[in-house]
Amino acid sequence: MGDPAGIGPEVIVKALAEPEIRRRGRFVIYGLNELLAYAADMAELDVFWWRDQHERIERDYPQSVVVGDYDEINWFSNNIRQSSKLGGQASMRFISDAIDDALAGKIDAIVTGPISKESWKMAGFKYPGHTELLTERCRAKCSAMMFVGGPFRVVLATIHESLFGIRDRFTIGRVFDPISLTHDALKQWFAVEKPKIAVAGLNPHAGEAGQFGDEEQRIIEPAILMAQEAGINVEGPFPADTLFHKALTNGYFDAIIAMYHDQGLIPVKLLAFDKAVNVTIGLPIIRTSVDHGTAFDIAGRNKANPNSMKEALKLACDMAETRKKQKAQQRTS
Amino acid sequence: MGDPAGIGPEVIVKALAEPEIRRRGRFVIYGLNELLAYAADMAELDVFWWRDQHERIERDYPQSVVVGDYDEINWFSNNIRQSSKLGGQASMRFISDAIDDALAGKIDAIVTGPISKESWKMAGFKYPGHTELLTERCRAKCSAMMFVGGPFRVVLATIHESLFGIRDRFTIGRVFDPISLTHDALKQWFAVEKPKIAVAGLNPHAGEAGQFGDEEQRIIEPAILMAQEAGINVEGPFPADTLFHKALTNGYFDAIIAMYHDQGLIPVKLLAFDKAVNVTIGLPIIRTSVDHGTAFDIAGRNKANPNSMKEALKLACDMAETRKKQKAQQRTS
Repeated sequence: MGDPAGIGPEVIVKALAEPEIRRRGRFVIYGLNELLAYAADMAELDVFWWRDQHERIERDYPQSVVVGDYDEINWFSNNIRQSSKLGGQASMRFISDAIDDALAGKIDAIVTGPISKESWKMAGFKYPGHTELLTERCRAKCSAMMFVGGPFRVVLATIHESLFGIRDRFTIGRVFDPISLTHDALKQWFAVEKPKIAVAGLNPHAGEAGQFGDEEQRIIEPAILMAQEAGINVEGPFPADTLFHKALTNGYFDAIIAMYHDQGLIPVKLLAFDKAVNVTIGLPIIRTSVDHGTAFDIAGRNKANPNSMKEALKLACDMAETRKKQKAQQRTS
Repeated sequence: MGDPAGIGPEVIVKALAEPEIRRRGRFVIYGLNELLAYAADMAELDVFWWRDQHERIERDYPQSVVVGDYDEINWFSNNIRQSSKLGGQASMRFISDAIDDALAGKIDAIVTGPISKESWKMAGFKYPGHTELLTERCRAKCSAMMFVGGPFRVVLATIHESLFGIRDRFTIGRVFDPISLTHDALKQWFAVEKPKIAVAGLNPHAGEAGQFGDEEQRIIEPAILMAQEAGINVEGPFPADTLFHKALTNGYFDAIIAMYHDQGLIPVKLLAFDKAVNVTIGLPIIRTSVDHGTAFDIAGRNKANPNSMKEALKLACDMAETRKKQKAQQRTS
């Protein structure tokens, strides 16, 4: 559910209200039933889910959607539309229980609503977001954010860091790791047999042979070479200003590695504004997420757009199906 | 014409071959007639222009297009498709004569083909491009690059610099100047009476209140405040990943100030790949340019796309007409 005070409950209800999505799988909502019922009421939707206490959730209910409720959390004493210690504690319990269930194989994928970093801080949790928590709990060596939206799959080499601060932490490993994780993820989760990956340059015109910055020569090219030597079909560094257009027309790439947040997200959000999905790659479990925040300003007002949640749910179903097929193939071969 | 060895001659011929464009004004090509004739021949176009020696060019010819030829330049001893000292000398003469004529009021606007920086270096000229030469020759205090393409007008606060190198030169003035130049240019050249300008942040999420970088607070916000105090309608800094989508949907801005090259050009080239025009703002004369390079790899092969040159010519005509109207109004009022 993410932070109960944000638009998480509303986008979950609106997205799962679509029969087309409910037909794709069975869904457990880790969150507060009352807020879901309130969101459904606001949106004039009938309640379509089964409710049970979260500790009691089993696999077999008549409904395809079950709420694992946390009614011991006394939410209505708390305000919506803002960060709070209780919101941080609640959203941490939801995700922690979901991770446990995913690692135990009880669920096939996790789809997350937006949390408030501020709420997590108030509750004493240091993680900047779900991604870092998942990486730690799954004991993954490294992970990366992939954004799937419109015609693009874009993976970020660096994320929530000041642009100039990246300079001191920009290493061959930070470019190589996302290339390698992307290659594996495309094969494992996206059923791309022979992935083809493009890497963006960091500087204008990808440095124009070292005229505007040497990071291409010192860092990005060696990382690409290492990946090529590891058998990965990867090309670059390409000038970022033309790469995204090139990816749509002259060439085809299964994914693009962007060097920093805005380089990757400007094109994704321009072509797939409310439909982009954030996928954590590098984990042993499937995790997709909405690409928006808690939007406290519109929470509880039936104004939230559920498109990103719908896409996140559909993509998680796609990925889980791909994984099942691959496991079945491995068993038969 | 730009560098004779590049695709300049070809895109000029193909663009001016359109009667729709020729009807918009009278055009003087500062360049080599033989290369234009060759390009027309390759493209199976009849010669539609008058040729004269560049020193002899007058205003009244029957044709709307006149080539001011430099036949003292013995071009065919030189190779096409590469940088050369002769190419640098030739393209410098073309632009220098055009600037002189523009400053003398003999022409209303300059539209430039692509030069080779390498050729200019070989010929002993230190300028990174036309823009810097124009700024110096026009004795402009400062200038900026505006890209006009698709739904956007984007002005760059920093241009051909390494991304991390900007850190040491990122000042309030470097953000204020393009805001101020953009405001004036929108009024003077684009007939926007009350310009509304947006400024992009530098860091992810525009720094999220200083969590990822303090340049928004230290530099960009003070620059915006200064501009607002000078009476300019400017807002920001906005998170760059959503600003360009926002500009298309929720809000309207007459121009967006991008903090660095790729931040501004990724969205422009994604939505207006071969149709973007580079306008130099801050000069006393009108100058538009193609947004592509010499493309030596396809020069002389009739493969070049003239769309950017067409748009650059049309925009120069628009701007010259706007200026004439404004001057006429000033005289009558």
